[in-house]
Amino acid sequence: MNTIQLDHQGRLKHFLGIEGLPKALLIEILDTATSLMSVTEQTVKKVPLLRGKTIVNLFFEPSTRTRTTFELAAKRLSADVLNFNINTSSSSKGETLIDMLRNLEAMHCDLFVVRHAAGGAAHFMAQHVAPHISIINAGDGRHEHPTQAMLDMYTIRQYKGDFSPLRVAIVGDILHSRVARSNIHALMTLGVAEVRVIGPNTLIPKGIATLGVKVFNRLKEGLRNVDVILMLRLQRERMQAALIPSVHEYFQYYGLTEAILETTHSDAIVMHPGPINRGVEIDSSVANGERSVILQQVSNGIAIRMAVMAMTLKAIPELKDTR
Amino acid sequence: MNTIQLDHQGRLKHFLGIEGLPKALLIEILDTATSLMSVTEQTVKKVPLLRGKTIVNLFFEPSTRTRTTFELAAKRLSADVLNFNINTSSSSKGETLIDMLRNLEAMHCDLFVVRHAAGGAAHFMAQHVAPHISIINAGDGRHEHPTQAMLDMYTIRQYKGDFSPLRVAIVGDILHSRVARSNIHALMTLGVAEVRVIGPNTLIPKGIATLGVKVFNRLKEGLRNVDVILMLRLQRERMQAALIPSVHEYFQYYGLTEAILETTHSDAIVMHPGPINRGVEIDSSVANGERSVILQQVSNGIAIRMAVMAMTLKAIPELKDTR
Amino acid sequence: MNTIQLDHQGRLKHFLGIEGLPKALLIEILDTATSLMSVTEQTVKKVPLLRGKTIVNLFFEPSTRTRTTFELAAKRLSADVLNFNINTSSSSKGETLIDMLRNLEAMHCDLFVVRHAAGGAAHFMAQHVAPHISIINAGDGRHEHPTQAMLDMYTIRQYKGDFSPLRVAIVGDILHSRVARSNIHALMTLGVAEVRVIGPNTLIPKGIATLGVKVFNRLKEGLRNVDVILMLRLQRERMQAALIPSVHEYFQYYGLTEAILETTHSDAIVMHPGPINRGVEIDSSVANGERSVILQQVSNGIAIRMAVMAMTLKAIPELKDTR
Repeated sequence: MNTIQLDHQGRLKHFLGIEGLPKALLIEILDTATSLMSVTEQTVKKVPLLRGKTIVNLFFEPSTRTRTTFELAAKRLSADVLNFNINTSSSSKGETLIDMLRNLEAMHCDLFVVRHAAGGAAHFMAQHVAPHISIINAGDGRHEHPTQAMLDMYTIRQYKGDFSPLRVAIVGDILHSRVARSNIHALMTLGVAEVRVIGPNTLIPKGIATLGVKVFNRLKEGLRNVDVILMLRLQRERMQAALIPSVHEYFQYYGLTEAILETTHSDAIVMHPGPINRGVEIDSSVANGERSVILQQVSNGIAIRMAVMAMTLKAIPELKDTR
Repeated sequence: MNTIQLDHQGRLKHFLGIEGLPKALLIEILDTATSLMSVTEQTVKKVPLLRGKTIVNLFFEPSTRTRTTFELAAKRLSADVLNFNINTSSSSKGETLIDMLRNLEAMHCDLFVVRHAAGGAAHFMAQHVAPHISIINAGDGRHEHPTQAMLDMYTIRQYKGDFSPLRVAIVGDILHSRVARSNIHALMTLGVAEVRVIGPNTLIPKGIATLGVKVFNRLKEGLRNVDVILMLRLQRERMQAALIPSVHEYFQYYGLTEAILETTHSDAIVMHPGPINRGVEIDSSVANGERSVILQQVSNGIAIRMAVMAMTLKAIPELKDTR
Repeated sequence: MNTIQLDHQGRLKHFLGIEGLPKALLIEILDTATSLMSVTEQTVKKVPLLRGKTIVNLFFEPSTRTRTTFELAAKRLSADVLNFNINTSSSSKGETLIDMLRNLEAMHCDLFVVRHAAGGAAHFMAQHVAPHISIINAGDGRHEHPTQAMLDMYTIRQYKGDFSPLRVAIVGDILHSRVARSNIHALMTLGVAEVRVIGPNTLIPKGIATLGVKVFNRLKEGLRNVDVILMLRLQRERMQAALIPSVHEYFQYYGLTEAILETTHSDAIVMHPGPINRGVEIDSSVANGERSVILQQVSNGIAIRMAVMAMTLKAIPELKDTR
């Protein structure tokens, strides 16, 4: 995938997944986001980095939240934004995905942010798109959700500094989670000491240990001595009927409660990609508690998306001039 | 409510309702709108007062018209606008209202414009929102619709000048109308000579006389000697089945016809919050007639909403610099 | 129609249809688009020609594609854009079309882009709108789609230069096509040597020969010696049940295949207004082939729409200053 994500100078052209990207590039994304973070906290939250550029949100899966963060990120870079919420039924009117791409290319759009229920959709588009256009994957099936992983990395760095000594646990439905996949790749590349996945065997992919992660079935055991707890959302809508656990049972075994949290390191932070199912995968008081950094993740998501958009469109050098 | 709407310097922080606001503040809103009115009539209709600010329209009740006026007002202040049309079914996916607020706060949004079917929704949000955020109520249940009342006051001042000698009649379904409630408070605070409500007893709240208004059941009698006629929209969708009058009967007793209008002061103006039900609460020829100021109300609505947005975000001092 | 489309100085005020417009004006639109075309290809794709103007997309028929091109065109002129997708059911809530217009006028909007299923809708609106507002027809029933025709003329001029020696064939459902109607008027006005329409008699309007076009029923015969092939989309949704041909049969007789294309002039270009029904009216390989200029049409559509918007709002003189 590397070959398609990077241009011949090794700079980011498309952002499709974390797998295979070099550590230096992940650090560059984090550093760029840091430099942009202050912008979103100012009274006037705009920079002209992408003024005159057109960014198209192509959402084949409904997602108000993620689309909104990309839209906000684009507007804070002064880009123009078009939103397409495409349900498969209406797009089946006869126009193919490729025809749709060709048309948007012809309209001189610059960047497509794509969410699709099919794994590989963003990659497919990057293979077929005109050379002047960049693609950002906003989640493709069970495959990857790279901006989510990078905002998680940003948040971890913000609270923990150095990645190398960290033990990170990812809890929940690893099997169906593109967030888990992207995070595992990011954590491995950034060189944390240990990545653990915690969940029932039915929700953990076979052979995941070959990625270098440790598998735990018991929450308490898996969380022992970790620095970062990354809870996943229980996405019942993506599961086969036979695999869906009862909410009650799931919470009993894998829900993050205050009691469980007290058995962990006192400075371990609690993360969640949102939206939270309170009382399903996480106790309300934990989500609101002192060790939760969930809302900071949301803030960081804007900066990370600004960074990736500006980097793929090669707008970052100008940043130094406008600040 | 005052304590939550005003900051410690007595300046407008949230705009939730007219009830309890001091007269000086209402006048300040009108004066600010006057200073902004010319902007909307220029060729270039923009001022940079809210450049870099993000305004979120949170509409839990569908309303293209009101949302559009807020969106236009925001854009003419150079703000970025996000629109959320939230129906209760989709928002019940597990995310609570508070979680939604927390997330939008974390994205560094500045102002939420809220419409909700439940009275008190905007007030509830103002109580729970982060300190840097302002809330504007765009209509909450049967409670208040303060920007509508202020655009009505603006229109009355435009045509009548001084409030003190005026007799104002509000006609129709007072019981279910947030417009009526907000207008009564505004008219009382601004010190008009007399406020009348006209309608069948079934559509007039018990005890409304304690607010200082006079109740009339007969249209002709109630309109005698008034300077301003404020017609309400018959909102059958908000009524309990047993209370819904037949359209024919309603028009016969409370519809504003040319014949009725001729029995009033020749300089009485006719107002309506829109959209008009022609032939239900008002005759088409009256709505289009010389004494109708209904479209002027729409124009004034943009300026009032610009004023309130800029005031809650403390952007008005800069106004003097940019003009 | 001329009298309503042009102001007293003969400049474009509304753009409702091609019929009756003078040749010089069509040329002026093409030349203005040429001068704007470079803008859409630059890194910063914006010009401030319509900064502070408000453009309203009023789409009573769903059309993501056409609406998007108008939205992009407006944003590249730095205008603010409001989108209304109005289905007849919701607009039948009691507000008339005229009341809707009056309200948008009162909000100081500048330009309405209208698509409607009823022929004459844009013309009706232009007759009733306030003097400061312009209307652009984005397709009205089977009547006209003038911006499509002008982007087609732009594309023809781009590839062929002079109009006068050209033979142009329009293929398909002429009867239901507003694109065909507008193109016939444009081609006639610009003075091409010959306009042909090709289709089954059931899909060709009676008496079309009086417009000066030649009618052909056989594709191969009609395409002989033409310079431009303008394929129409088979719009089964607009046809009466009895007239709908089978897709298989239609393609057999009127589908543009490589075999047919080889019987034509080797430099004849292939055009299509999109979206393409591959395998229905055109072979996939023809649509993607060397002689297809279909995507160039899409690009040109942005420039043409920018030109017409800026011309109706009298913003073109400023163009010279800002370039």
